[in-house]
Amino acid sequence: MKNTFGNHISLTLFGESHGPEIGCVVDGLGPGLPVDEAKITRLLALRRPAGPGATARVEPDPFRIVSGVWQGRTTGTPLCILIPNRDARPGDYVNLSAIPRPGHADYTGRVKYRGFADPRGGGHFSGRLTAPLVAAGAIFLEALRQRGVQLGTHLARCAGVSDRAFAADPAVDLAALEQAAFPVLDPERGEMMKAAVLEAARAGDSVGGILETAVTGLPAGLGEPWFDTLEGLLSHALFSIPAVKGVEFGDGFALAEMTGSRANDPFRLEADRVVTVSNHNGGVNGGLSNGMPLIFRTAVKPTPSIAAPQRTLDLSTGEPAELRIQGRHDPCIAPRACPVQDSLTALVLLDLLTGTV
Amino acid sequence: MKNTFGNHISLTLFGESHGPEIGCVVDGLGPGLPVDEAKITRLLALRRPAGPGATARVEPDPFRIVSGVWQGRTTGTPLCILIPNRDARPGDYVNLSAIPRPGHADYTGRVKYRGFADPRGGGHFSGRLTAPLVAAGAIFLEALRQRGVQLGTHLARCAGVSDRAFAADPAVDLAALEQAAFPVLDPERGEMMKAAVLEAARAGDSVGGILETAVTGLPAGLGEPWFDTLEGLLSHALFSIPAVKGVEFGDGFALAEMTGSRANDPFRLEADRVVTVSNHNGGVNGGLSNGMPLIFRTAVKPTPSIAAPQRTLDLSTGEPAELRIQGRHDPCIAPRACPVQDSLTALVLLDLLTGTV
Amino acid sequence: MKNTFGNHISLTLFGESHGPEIGCVVDGLGPGLPVDEAKITRLLALRRPAGPGATARVEPDPFRIVSGVWQGRTTGTPLCILIPNRDARPGDYVNLSAIPRPGHADYTGRVKYRGFADPRGGGHFSGRLTAPLVAAGAIFLEALRQRGVQLGTHLARCAGVSDRAFAADPAVDLAALEQAAFPVLDPERGEMMKAAVLEAARAGDSVGGILETAVTGLPAGLGEPWFDTLEGLLSHALFSIPAVKGVEFGDGFALAEMTGSRANDPFRLEADRVVTVSNHNGGVNGGLSNGMPLIFRTAVKPTPSIAAPQRTLDLSTGEPAELRIQGRHDPCIAPRACPVQDSLTALVLLDLLTGTV
Amino acid sequence: MKNTFGNHISLTLFGESHGPEIGCVVDGLGPGLPVDEAKITRLLALRRPAGPGATARVEPDPFRIVSGVWQGRTTGTPLCILIPNRDARPGDYVNLSAIPRPGHADYTGRVKYRGFADPRGGGHFSGRLTAPLVAAGAIFLEALRQRGVQLGTHLARCAGVSDRAFAADPAVDLAALEQAAFPVLDPERGEMMKAAVLEAARAGDSVGGILETAVTGLPAGLGEPWFDTLEGLLSHALFSIPAVKGVEFGDGFALAEMTGSRANDPFRLEADRVVTVSNHNGGVNGGLSNGMPLIFRTAVKPTPSIAAPQRTLDLSTGEPAELRIQGRHDPCIAPRACPVQDSLTALVLLDLLTGTV
Repeated sequence: MKNTFGNHISLTLFGESHGPEIGCVVDGLGPGLPVDEAKITRLLALRRPAGPGATARVEPDPFRIVSGVWQGRTTGTPLCILIPNRDARPGDYVNLSAIPRPGHADYTGRVKYRGFADPRGGGHFSGRLTAPLVAAGAIFLEALRQRGVQLGTHLARCAGVSDRAFAADPAVDLAALEQAAFPVLDPERGEMMKAAVLEAARAGDSVGGILETAVTGLPAGLGEPWFDTLEGLLSHALFSIPAVKGVEFGDGFALAEMTGSRANDPFRLEADRVVTVSNHNGGVNGGLSNGMPLIFRTAVKPTPSIAAPQRTLDLSTGEPAELRIQGRHDPCIAPRACPVQDSLTALVLLDLLTGTV
Repeated sequence: MKNTFGNHISLTLFGESHGPEIGCVVDGLGPGLPVDEAKITRLLALRRPAGPGATARVEPDPFRIVSGVWQGRTTGTPLCILIPNRDARPGDYVNLSAIPRPGHADYTGRVKYRGFADPRGGGHFSGRLTAPLVAAGAIFLEALRQRGVQLGTHLARCAGVSDRAFAADPAVDLAALEQAAFPVLDPERGEMMKAAVLEAARAGDSVGGILETAVTGLPAGLGEPWFDTLEGLLSHALFSIPAVKGVEFGDGFALAEMTGSRANDPFRLEADRVVTVSNHNGGVNGGLSNGMPLIFRTAVKPTPSIAAPQRTLDLSTGEPAELRIQGRHDPCIAPRACPVQDSLTALVLLDLLTGTV
Repeated sequence: MKNTFGNHISLTLFGESHGPEIGCVVDGLGPGLPVDEAKITRLLALRRPAGPGATARVEPDPFRIVSGVWQGRTTGTPLCILIPNRDARPGDYVNLSAIPRPGHADYTGRVKYRGFADPRGGGHFSGRLTAPLVAAGAIFLEALRQRGVQLGTHLARCAGVSDRAFAADPAVDLAALEQAAFPVLDPERGEMMKAAVLEAARAGDSVGGILETAVTGLPAGLGEPWFDTLEGLLSHALFSIPAVKGVEFGDGFALAEMTGSRANDPFRLEADRVVTVSNHNGGVNGGLSNGMPLIFRTAVKPTPSIAAPQRTLDLSTGEPAELRIQGRHDPCIAPRACPVQDSLTALVLLDLLTGTV
Repeated sequence: MKNTFGNHISLTLFGESHGPEIGCVVDGLGPGLPVDEAKITRLLALRRPAGPGATARVEPDPFRIVSGVWQGRTTGTPLCILIPNRDARPGDYVNLSAIPRPGHADYTGRVKYRGFADPRGGGHFSGRLTAPLVAAGAIFLEALRQRGVQLGTHLARCAGVSDRAFAADPAVDLAALEQAAFPVLDPERGEMMKAAVLEAARAGDSVGGILETAVTGLPAGLGEPWFDTLEGLLSHALFSIPAVKGVEFGDGFALAEMTGSRANDPFRLEADRVVTVSNHNGGVNGGLSNGMPLIFRTAVKPTPSIAAPQRTLDLSTGEPAELRIQGRHDPCIAPRACPVQDSLTALVLLDLLTGTV
């Protein structure tokens, strides 16, 4: 399926930014997993725009689980989550169908769907579809926790400001992130980020960032040697986060500058567990998890929707056009992308763990 | 399938580094495609180790096509390519089964396959399996050329030396790369790279690099909005290149530092074609190709096999061990990875074009 | 995905018999296909129980299309159809969870889902889930018609009464079937069937039948030589019709009694088209369509839910139990299964045609 | 993949009847399964033509396992089996490319592959490709036996002669079948079948039959409620047996004539196991195994290749033609199809068991 991800546990997204409802179907979850609606609500809140400069479009996200759950637990049959679109203002987007926004999918979607796609607010391409993804993610994260796997994502960098790095053992950092309203390890840096984002917004502009995820408690040996490597599967999913343009594991691009004697992580025994002395490889050797914390980063480009006027093209006339985007948009989606990154990571890992007998 | 990639055109790799034969099966190729055995031989030669400091293990790669080709053209049924392993020296690797090489899959593979995997030379994890992949890649590349799509990969950086960048229109660069014995755009930089690699080898060490690919002639609209984005599919495949630890599209991680007003690529008309003025997004908007050159980079870590002694663990005793790798290994696999990157890219793109009616 | 069918066009079913809503997601439909809501309503009506002896549970099936359609046409993005469950009476089924109905999925579902499945009315196993399948089928059938493919299913046999056979060119029969309220070619035989069904119902019992489908306008060459044969794909789908226990193509099991000289269908030319003189093979040679009408039959067992008391087991105590089913059930589901068979056939064929460039 | 079957354990067939080698790749087998080459040889012998009237083309089938096995056990990586084609006589088949044999895939394959397919001996459509399938089947059958699952197939009917039925507990029958050179339960009936086949061969004609399979030791709950039902998965695979035109489970088509009170199999407890009193449903309820013996039948049509002259068409001229098939062919492939049916059944069941945690 085209809008589906996962081999053993699969998630399909459907809906359009301004249609009546958006949703997802998750198939392959085993029976008996707890479904904590409060946790879903909490994760959805983190995904919603908030704070200075953020889009004023606030959807309360009153999700409904219409199948696959019975008396608070998964039944083992497909689980469907629906979220209504309440605060749609179709008028804001009418002109986008012929005048594509730079950096957006307006033009590429128009070519792909030959003009039949719902043009309102990005249609199926809208970041709004990450809401049902995050709702399902809350279930995945809880299922992982029951298997001893914890994960979390912080803003390693945003608007030119860096957060501090994860500790070598990120367990405490992950616990803190789960409570955090703004996804940073150092709250002071978080305030600096917010200020820098606000400044960009005031200039009618936008900024990007880098999201870093840590996962603890993964067993060694997850992934396949060819194609379905742990890195390949995760990156496949992560590029669905709107605006992600790069993915790196461990020291990533910095590894290209190292020598082998430095980049190799020596093995040693620690309380009967095989560990590595360093973790330049981010917990992955040969495409498989090695039991160390899994560490990766994604690059989030600045939000393409900006208030400042932009040059583009009127596809109906072929004439150059100046675009002034009227809708409400975030000057930086990086903070809101953190729970999406958590959710996609959880889907990939739960899928791999489910397929490993 | 676990060791398979592709939806409409799929490739499965099989074999072990020191088994009798390695090979691949390609299914889904339409009937009537020309199969140019000379081109396969040429691409296989680029993948083979060569030059100063390179591993002395030289396999002549006398591939055989045992099915799916009749009178020089694909039949439309599964195409199987076999390559014998001639220069195997199993003795070199005997001790690796209990003493895992840092940075390699020895330990993770041992856990995954519970000790049953063929331990000789990395077994199924060996970079040797990229040979049948490259043989198939030669067929994919020719099929793409017939559809007007050209692609090539250069060493953007290796051992601390940078090649020059692709031209804005990389057509001439791609033609030159196809003839090049060493995959760089600036031969002088290439010589500097070789010298730096040799220096590392003399020190018993290894180095990495960055591979950059350009693709021209792609139609707009390839990819899916969720999960099977063009970026997601490519990265999924590219992480199968041994030692790749990062993938970025367009300006990639550098985009995280830009503002939206700079990162957005404005649309304009050029001779009745919709193009963008800049190409910071690397030819991809919203996960779909936009008709501009597709540009991406991978980070290749330094070869984990180094001559210098390394600390590791003897898994049979739990005692620390010092490892001195006796086998012959490249001090830098980045140049040889270029045809592999071309082949995987060609598979992904041909698969997408085949599935697009 | 587990509850999904189709390679290029895929359909996922979700929901439980007595949950708030049931539905399906269809992905892979091209953009621009007309969506005729009146046709969906018409096909849903054929699937609903009616007539003497039928279950009194009548759901008006007020379906909603919540995504993938814009201004009356498919957008090319996932299409979700929802149907609320209005007439649920959970109380009727309460005791089924521990006392499995013979011939039903109560016991096997209990084992598979380890007791966590929604036990009400068969849960996800319910024939009720064929409603969204048929709603989607109406879209598939219209898409096939636009490609020149027509199909229909009649009750070849029901309650011991046989309908007449399809004409050698079933075009007129298919046109008549599309208008028919009761799916037979000979209305008189249809009345005899109804009378026989009613008689069984009065005896507290149930009956089965044989559904025969004809498809015209298929191009030759659809299917794959191994595994994804036209026959294999259709049978895979058709066994999802509740109560189907056999599938045969052309003369099917009768072919096992013939000699080759009789079973072979000789080729000849008819107005520049290659046709066969007879059609014992039902339009399929070597697993691929041959351009002749595709003909196949399914065996539908009698409805397992009967009014008469049955012996079974109380799984909570391990004691024998007598079961008296209180719910309202059809004495024969064969007539209602015809639009389901049409819908599944249309999905398989549209999927194959979509994947054939 | 097109010529691939299986979700967790997948098998891909490649090769042409008269190419240098045919083979298969099996992926997903866990590490450590024993690979018994003598058992492979034994099963291949059962698949080979033999006895009066059979084709004189005898291939010794000296298979080679080129990957995925190390020291007599599966490694967990893809297992490739190759079988050379030694006794090819391409000249026999030269005229088939333009003059399609009735009942064969010559015409449909020509359309599908647009004239590029290898025309010799059916090419990829050849029954010869069942040899590597059976070789892999021997491994699957052994893996099932280790899990307590036994299965076997007998000729329930051949050339108008019926074998006796499986006993209600088919364990003894299965043990006998494993030793049998001719796959029947009653050797006397087997001799009558052979005589009847020989008679048909003398008349230049061919005959078909019905294959019946029994499986014991399956746990309850295998299969999915929608689409991937146990019946749907098995039938999908079984229609790949050349000449199979029908599949039925339990009493199959005879169920369409029964009443529900007779067709339902009542549950009872037997030594703490839930069993059914009768087994009209063939061990499947609601698409899932119920723990009773799994019973199904396939209808095998008479071999299309017959010595008697047949009417057909010369596609190169459009003129009628008389075909006299010169190749050597079996007058009845039903006996040889039994190990193929065993192998496909074993693949489906092992796949389902592997995917069930």
